[in-house]
Amino acid sequence: MATKEEIEEFMRADFPQAKFIIEAVGKQSATVKHTIGFDELRPGGTVSGPVLMAAADCALYVAILGEIGIVSLAVTTSLTINFMRKPSSTKDIIAECTLLKVGRALVVGEVSLYSEGDEKAVAHVVATYSIPKLKD
Amino acid sequence: MATKEEIEEFMRADFPQAKFIIEAVGKQSATVKHTIGFDELRPGGTVSGPVLMAAADCALYVAILGEIGIVSLAVTTSLTINFMRKPSSTKDIIAECTLLKVGRALVVGEVSLYSEGDEKAVAHVVATYSIPKLKD
Amino acid sequence: MATKEEIEEFMRADFPQAKFIIEAVGKQSATVKHTIGFDELRPGGTVSGPVLMAAADCALYVAILGEIGIVSLAVTTSLTINFMRKPSSTKDIIAECTLLKVGRALVVGEVSLYSEGDEKAVAHVVATYSIPKLKD
Amino acid sequence: MATKEEIEEFMRADFPQAKFIIEAVGKQSATVKHTIGFDELRPGGTVSGPVLMAAADCALYVAILGEIGIVSLAVTTSLTINFMRKPSSTKDIIAECTLLKVGRALVVGEVSLYSEGDEKAVAHVVATYSIPKLKD
Repeated sequence: MATKEEIEEFMRADFPQAKFIIEAVGKQSATVKHTIGFDELRPGGTVSGPVLMAAADCALYVAILGEIGIVSLAVTTSLTINFMRKPSSTKDIIAECTLLKVGRALVVGEVSLYSEGDEKAVAHVVATYSIPKLKD
Repeated sequence: MATKEEIEEFMRADFPQAKFIIEAVGKQSATVKHTIGFDELRPGGTVSGPVLMAAADCALYVAILGEIGIVSLAVTTSLTINFMRKPSSTKDIIAECTLLKVGRALVVGEVSLYSEGDEKAVAHVVATYSIPKLKD
Repeated sequence: MATKEEIEEFMRADFPQAKFIIEAVGKQSATVKHTIGFDELRPGGTVSGPVLMAAADCALYVAILGEIGIVSLAVTTSLTINFMRKPSSTKDIIAECTLLKVGRALVVGEVSLYSEGDEKAVAHVVATYSIPKLKD
Repeated sequence: MATKEEIEEFMRADFPQAKFIIEAVGKQSATVKHTIGFDELRPGGTVSGPVLMAAADCALYVAILGEIGIVSLAVTTSLTINFMRKPSSTKDIIAECTLLKVGRALVVGEVSLYSEGDEKAVAHVVATYSIPKLKD
């Protein structure tokens, strides 16, 4: 297991250019904020799909690190995203992840994505991470 | 909107051979039980994947009927299922659906599937239904 | 690697009630026919979604057996199906699988599903199988 | 239907910051190149998942425009990506899209993603676009 502070330090070293803020790390869960600026927008004034995916992927990664400790080799193997509502162009994106299964080799999690302050999710993600065998 | 009784009557007429019991219909949600017998099992004593998918699909359909009323032309357009734990061969399957978006043309929902009485989900589904335009 | 005959024998022993016919096993590929009768139909005269999923799952399993040999513990971990056209109620379902990746722990494959004799696919599946470590 | 030149002009106006080059627009298909530089890389020297998603999404959009003409309101409704191999950090990403279904309201397509010059796909995408009703 890793604390919010340990994960922040690890992410800062490994992802220096990331625009993520870890809001919370809980029991098999994590909340991450992705700050939104011009680079994250698409014509028409909405957050681009890949930014939503990045936010979801980051929230899932943080939840995994919080659960199993700092492992740098965990990789996403599959991800399904459903786009449900148009995100606001003036609000940051909040990604709330819950782990559904923490297996020895695979972790499955779901993430709900919100424009900050809004009640209804803009998108929903289910994804699988492959975890390196620690002692094998 | 349709009540549990109206949905049961509709499903009985349209799906006479179905092995589903509607447990609850709520606000943008539904719970369905799929009874499990020899036909639903795979070698090794576990519930087959297609049975889990059928249970999820039914729960989503019931939740949609409960939300928008009896529409016989709603069809599944896409479905993603993650298998997480081995279902029990001696317990029925409980499918709990929550609608994530009810749009004019598309409905998105997620379903958690359990072996009855167990706390941890055996599988998770996200799916999209296409809804016929009622008055357009 | 396993031949079509070896896979047929294995499937017959392990899935005696299955309605599948192995049409071909090729290089990282397989074609399977799922015979369609009353039990596979839904009201309205179309093949049910879970039957399509079962056909896809079987084709993927056969392609894996053909590639890595008889392994009874391979299990589906995730599956995404897109429903594209209404299947014929009077034609069998043909499932054509191509493996996209054969890794040490995970296999990814895609499957196109057809009503026999039709040119356009009725559904498309991408799925992941987890493979037991043989020698670890 | 729209030509490669019409699509290029449309994309330049609407996505001025995009790093995409349209390589080909064919019958229900398109090939797009996403140039890769420092911004597209992750620690460890690989192309980030969201960049792969963006490339796939763009290829699908171009294939749709080539098929149904310039429509600015088409939006992705769902997308599933499987990550299969580590992309090269020094090669551009090639996204090859084939449309699986072009319906009145929904388009389904699949995309294979390659590091340029490599034979094996690094990732595979299936996605659905919702198309605005033109004359309704």
